Amino acid sequence: MIAKKMLKYVEGSSVTRAMFEEGKRQAKLYGAENVYDFSLGNPSVEPPKAVNDSMIEVLQQTNQNKVHGYMSNAGHEEVRDAIAKSLNQKFGTDFSEENIIMTVGAAGGLNVILKTLLDPEDEVIAFAPYFSEYNNYVANFDGTMVPVSPSIPDFQPNLEEFAQKITARTKAVIVNTPNNPTGVVYSEETIQKMAAIMEQKEKEFGTSIYLIADEPYRELAYDGVEVPYLTKYYKNTIVGYSYSKSLSLPGERIGYLVIPKEVDDFENVLNAATIATRILGFVNAPSLQQLAVAKCLDETTDITAYDRNRKLLYDKLQELGFTCAKPEGAFYMWVKALEEDDNAFVAKAKEFHLLLVPGSAFMCPGYVRIAYCVDTDMLQRSFVAFEKLADSYR
Amino acid sequence: MIAKKMLKYVEGSSVTRAMFEEGKRQAKLYGAENVYDFSLGNPSVEPPKAVNDSMIEVLQQTNQNKVHGYMSNAGHEEVRDAIAKSLNQKFGTDFSEENIIMTVGAAGGLNVILKTLLDPEDEVIAFAPYFSEYNNYVANFDGTMVPVSPSIPDFQPNLEEFAQKITARTKAVIVNTPNNPTGVVYSEETIQKMAAIMEQKEKEFGTSIYLIADEPYRELAYDGVEVPYLTKYYKNTIVGYSYSKSLSLPGERIGYLVIPKEVDDFENVLNAATIATRILGFVNAPSLQQLAVAKCLDETTDITAYDRNRKLLYDKLQELGFTCAKPEGAFYMWVKALEEDDNAFVAKAKEFHLLLVPGSAFMCPGYVRIAYCVDTDMLQRSFVAFEKLADSYR
Repeated sequence: MIAKKMLKYVEGSSVTRAMFEEGKRQAKLYGAENVYDFSLGNPSVEPPKAVNDSMIEVLQQTNQNKVHGYMSNAGHEEVRDAIAKSLNQKFGTDFSEENIIMTVGAAGGLNVILKTLLDPEDEVIAFAPYFSEYNNYVANFDGTMVPVSPSIPDFQPNLEEFAQKITARTKAVIVNTPNNPTGVVYSEETIQKMAAIMEQKEKEFGTSIYLIADEPYRELAYDGVEVPYLTKYYKNTIVGYSYSKSLSLPGERIGYLVIPKEVDDFENVLNAATIATRILGFVNAPSLQQLAVAKCLDETTDITAYDRNRKLLYDKLQELGFTCAKPEGAFYMWVKALEEDDNAFVAKAKEFHLLLVPGSAFMCPGYVRIAYCVDTDMLQRSFVAFEKLADSYR
Repeated sequence: MIAKKMLKYVEGSSVTRAMFEEGKRQAKLYGAENVYDFSLGNPSVEPPKAVNDSMIEVLQQTNQNKVHGYMSNAGHEEVRDAIAKSLNQKFGTDFSEENIIMTVGAAGGLNVILKTLLDPEDEVIAFAPYFSEYNNYVANFDGTMVPVSPSIPDFQPNLEEFAQKITARTKAVIVNTPNNPTGVVYSEETIQKMAAIMEQKEKEFGTSIYLIADEPYRELAYDGVEVPYLTKYYKNTIVGYSYSKSLSLPGERIGYLVIPKEVDDFENVLNAATIATRILGFVNAPSLQQLAVAKCLDETTDITAYDRNRKLLYDKLQELGFTCAKPEGAFYMWVKALEEDDNAFVAKAKEFHLLLVPGSAFMCPGYVRIAYCVDTDMLQRSFVAFEKLADSYR
């Protein structure tokens, strides 16, 4: 009785989520302390204290209808103004309130901008491995997903294949740096090359190709690595940001889109995105969260715990002979499976109570993702299991 | 450059929103106190104190990752359990946690269930006048909207035409009672007749026809009028609820879907709706709001102010010779325009600084909607303007 498209989803379901359920099952069987769940990107570090304090401060305002009421679909004007100013200060950009649309997280923002841009069969390019929800978001609007093969072993975007895959129907390119699932950060040089390719193809085809920068991990970069702000390198860039990881608020669904005035067809893109926010059923981003994050624009979750986990895990995996992409950002490590079939490898890991996500779920078989946003104590206890896993392949 | 569908929306834009902007413009020109804005359904009554207190209480919990983190896409289990129990107590139903999916308001819920159900060209019936966003929600999933003509002057659903319009492609029927824009509540007898028609047509065509009850106004009913709980009258009923009006939280985007286990293809509907929540980009309803409303399930916004406005306005409009539908619920009054062209009538009202929404925006020309969720003081000051408006047609 349900929609045919949805029946396919129900049958397929999400590998990541299935893993989440498996975690719960194993925890019941063996005790939570004996299960090492690295499957979900759910921040383990608490939000900065200022975030909670700001929410309480906003709640104590006298005008409750302002705090909890409707506002423009694009969001509270003063919030958007504060975000624009903060971006300008950090990145030397020139945004104003009208360039910002508050969204229900980055997932909401991506859906809004894809609805805005995509006609049926328009093509959207993404670089494997990538977050598989992109496939679903693009399918929501009958677009066609065009994956670019991974560049092994550095997992920087494969620019040669990228250039080949751009066609007259390419409407958008999604870039995610720091990257889920690899933890890799795209260098400035890479971004410059990518921009040059896109500009050349826009000329060749007489089209506009929008670069969508999906940036939930922007603030999670280590060793002082710089994460280039993409609007500065390519005119038709639209940024989708989320506070899910930077302020550890994934359940609150708060983020924003940046639509710079330089993008082609700016007025229409802006108006359509505002309307898309409404008609997709978001209506607006949650009001209290908008008002709260505006008071915390200089705050970031304390990433030292992630950084510590990153180093501990990377060193241990190296010691055990695993091959990893260089983890410079986000809270994921991308590891070569010890057999060809990553699903079989994940099943084997499960025997040692290690819950990992197969690379196939990110359009890149042969690898696994380890989400190290976990208690350091649990991480250290898991090392014996990783050792047993490695041994089982010797 | 944007999607063709969206270009159409940008050109059309929302009449209600345009009115909202007109209000801001007039307020600047004539002073806010001299503009009588009845255009938006934005609650004027503050949320109950318990709602704010609950939010603060939740924020003061020690486990901030629980308060702000990811949970199952369907929502916090204990929240869904509390809502199911509260519904069972109020309506004698038999729901459990698994029948409830927390949503980003009712708009989010409607999009989730329409995505779940609709194949392209499936038909969805709604009774004019109806909230015009339904057209957009149905179009999001390539469904075909089939409006049933209004039944004048009582604005109960036109059941004769309803029966004629059901076809083998009818997948869903949307019912909204108490009704936006009419303020009418559908009687139990009406609901029973409607259910009988649908059951008969399901048999005739060998199909399942889902009744979607859009219920943001359930708690706003006056004079002790009963609002029937639709799952009790028709097996294939799915309820979309929102706390936007009942707790004055429209900006927070919190509501839920009820999917009773009796509905055809229950498991698939439930699983697909949970997946739709994720892939449409909502991911989950805002976490803090979920936890807060669960503590306020017996609370309702103080509707005495709306009731007072309702009586004052209804009496005044009667006195001035206007024709109104019987306003038993919500916070809207549905009034016959004093000329055939409701847009011209709205333009005339604007000259007296009265901002109303034309019936055309609800698929029912010749009428206007007055949203009386406003300050009583403003309402009373507006009466002179209504008088002048009526006079201008004598």
